[in-house]
Amino acid sequence: MFNHPELLRIPGPTPIPPQVQQAMNEVMFGHRSEDAKNLLQEIRDSLPKIFGTTEEVIVLSGSGTSALEAAVVNSVSEGDEVLVVVSGAFGKRFAQICETFNLRVHYLTYEWGEAVQLDDVVKMLKKYPNIKAVFTTYCETSTSVLHPIREISELIQQKSDALMIVDGVSAVGAVETKMDEWNIDILISGSQKAFMLPPGLSFVALSKKAQRQIKTNKQPHFYLDVLKHKTALESSSTPYTPALSLLMGLRQVLVMFKEEGLENIYKRHLLMKDMVRSALRALHIPLLVTDDKYASPTVTAARIPNDQADELRSILQEQFGLIFAGGQQKLKGEIIRIGHMGYCTPAHILQLLSLLEIGLKKIGYDITLGSGVATAQDVYISGGW
Amino acid sequence: MFNHPELLRIPGPTPIPPQVQQAMNEVMFGHRSEDAKNLLQEIRDSLPKIFGTTEEVIVLSGSGTSALEAAVVNSVSEGDEVLVVVSGAFGKRFAQICETFNLRVHYLTYEWGEAVQLDDVVKMLKKYPNIKAVFTTYCETSTSVLHPIREISELIQQKSDALMIVDGVSAVGAVETKMDEWNIDILISGSQKAFMLPPGLSFVALSKKAQRQIKTNKQPHFYLDVLKHKTALESSSTPYTPALSLLMGLRQVLVMFKEEGLENIYKRHLLMKDMVRSALRALHIPLLVTDDKYASPTVTAARIPNDQADELRSILQEQFGLIFAGGQQKLKGEIIRIGHMGYCTPAHILQLLSLLEIGLKKIGYDITLGSGVATAQDVYISGGW
Repeated sequence: MFNHPELLRIPGPTPIPPQVQQAMNEVMFGHRSEDAKNLLQEIRDSLPKIFGTTEEVIVLSGSGTSALEAAVVNSVSEGDEVLVVVSGAFGKRFAQICETFNLRVHYLTYEWGEAVQLDDVVKMLKKYPNIKAVFTTYCETSTSVLHPIREISELIQQKSDALMIVDGVSAVGAVETKMDEWNIDILISGSQKAFMLPPGLSFVALSKKAQRQIKTNKQPHFYLDVLKHKTALESSSTPYTPALSLLMGLRQVLVMFKEEGLENIYKRHLLMKDMVRSALRALHIPLLVTDDKYASPTVTAARIPNDQADELRSILQEQFGLIFAGGQQKLKGEIIRIGHMGYCTPAHILQLLSLLEIGLKKIGYDITLGSGVATAQDVYISGGW
Repeated sequence: MFNHPELLRIPGPTPIPPQVQQAMNEVMFGHRSEDAKNLLQEIRDSLPKIFGTTEEVIVLSGSGTSALEAAVVNSVSEGDEVLVVVSGAFGKRFAQICETFNLRVHYLTYEWGEAVQLDDVVKMLKKYPNIKAVFTTYCETSTSVLHPIREISELIQQKSDALMIVDGVSAVGAVETKMDEWNIDILISGSQKAFMLPPGLSFVALSKKAQRQIKTNKQPHFYLDVLKHKTALESSSTPYTPALSLLMGLRQVLVMFKEEGLENIYKRHLLMKDMVRSALRALHIPLLVTDDKYASPTVTAARIPNDQADELRSILQEQFGLIFAGGQQKLKGEIIRIGHMGYCTPAHILQLLSLLEIGLKKIGYDITLGSGVATAQDVYISGGW
């Protein structure tokens, strides 16, 4: 079978742009060399803007989960009360980490596919006035919900002293994110989503308030000590040997971000979301997230009835090398998840929709071939692109 | 300046073989795909042999320090008594991690450049009968000492119930290592040394005894939970998204290991050690480790008098792009460290020695040009290669 790099359409890892692949092949150098210092300096210059902060953005050599754990162990200690929003697999992971470290976890739970309601947050904060941190997920990758992080964050800022901690792994770099302006205290992301890199790096940005709380927090940790990373980063260095080839790739990604411009990147992702959702509606494929307002610009989940989701995915992979993700945990076998973030353009969307239509036909769906594509094309044209 | 990949001669990161660079550029795939499963399966088939074990070798997406921390937090808990051998920067790091987690740390300290004396270990075990784990370093990269790990391990097996925990980061894959036969309980390594990869992966192998102790250990941890990693690995999977491109590289490295054969790899490293040490002696450059028996096959440290070590390094880098490491911490400015592991052959050694001679001349050393090279050539020829 021919290889189609552009057809890896899961919500991360995403395809890697050729110039980023190339950058990761630069000749290896020492992690204490001038080259490494310059590399980190360039990353420091560009990365914070993407998080909407003037603070340093710490780069951990570890996958997104290491950054989630870092957020927990640096900011709270055994016995502390925390609030965790659970509406899918990644909120659940945050909760698991909190439970592991013996925190007193209060759950704000939603059906998979639903978004946070602000009233519920207000109620929880009233009921549990000692909450020290609120753990939330910007894009819940398992359901494709985009939670109203700005509103939640502003609400917490008004009503509580708790830290607002956000897993932004499949959102930052693709969806508008203004950490400082929105009063987010800890914002996390990872390399293999909008950042168009292989997995292996994760990012942690800390507000001044978070830094103060972390300084006095007692939970032991070593590799994930974010203040140690921050101090090192202030001299364009790292406390331990970093994943250098990924950092070389990150530098190139940041060049590409600058060339395209953040506002244009956000617009491109909104366009791709609209194209996919409109096409699926035209094909009568039920969307898991019904309200456009809470649908993520980076990933779209759709229900494939009659337990045919995995059959559809198999056919698409076998015939075309097109790879969609399936459902996780309680949605296993029920949905497909289409990743459309990072190295993804409207041309890719039209391509994958055309293949999806064939797949739907093959599993017996009564669709009009071309109708999804046409709808997406119309979204593109009528959007003035 | 022209780029000379082969002249990165620090003790890690090392140069990356072209076929490994190439392998890391394979098209990205999903971390839950069949491709990922096959990748991990192939790694599982080959990696344990290099550690000298029939147990699984856990692959962490994190640098060597994450594996050191994993060894600590999985095997012992707050208040436990441990023994740590400190004879350089990396023994010291193990100790720092142990202190971080509030262990009762007993130190077995040596001058930088000295190796462990077995009698001292016996004394410490007698004096502190409740020691639960002994933390040692196979090759102390900061001094180029190779500690007698086999002997220490066999001794601990006879005299104590403690776990024998070994940082093998700059040794495993280049120096004979028989974990099972020598009764090592936890053996750690990293990707950027003998494994010829960029930094970002680390390895942890666990004896049955270590696994038992870990099962009942109470220290909280999440990302570094080695049993969770082991369980996942048993189905050729990982608990969290792994650093996939590095794993693709690792698969290629394991192919290369198999092609050359482990015994041949060990012999090549012993040869390179002998070539470097004989040449430096011929040039009257004092070796930091005087006894050949305790000198590492992977790195050689030499004293450059009159505080000229860093001047020498600067000249070599500026003139030829040849990069040696300097001294760390208390040896800063006093030594050079020549890495000769992984993607390194006798031809590389002769090349670097010829450049080193020029550098020594330039900083005013009274040497006979070519004399170090000639000595190394003689070692090569008379060794029957």
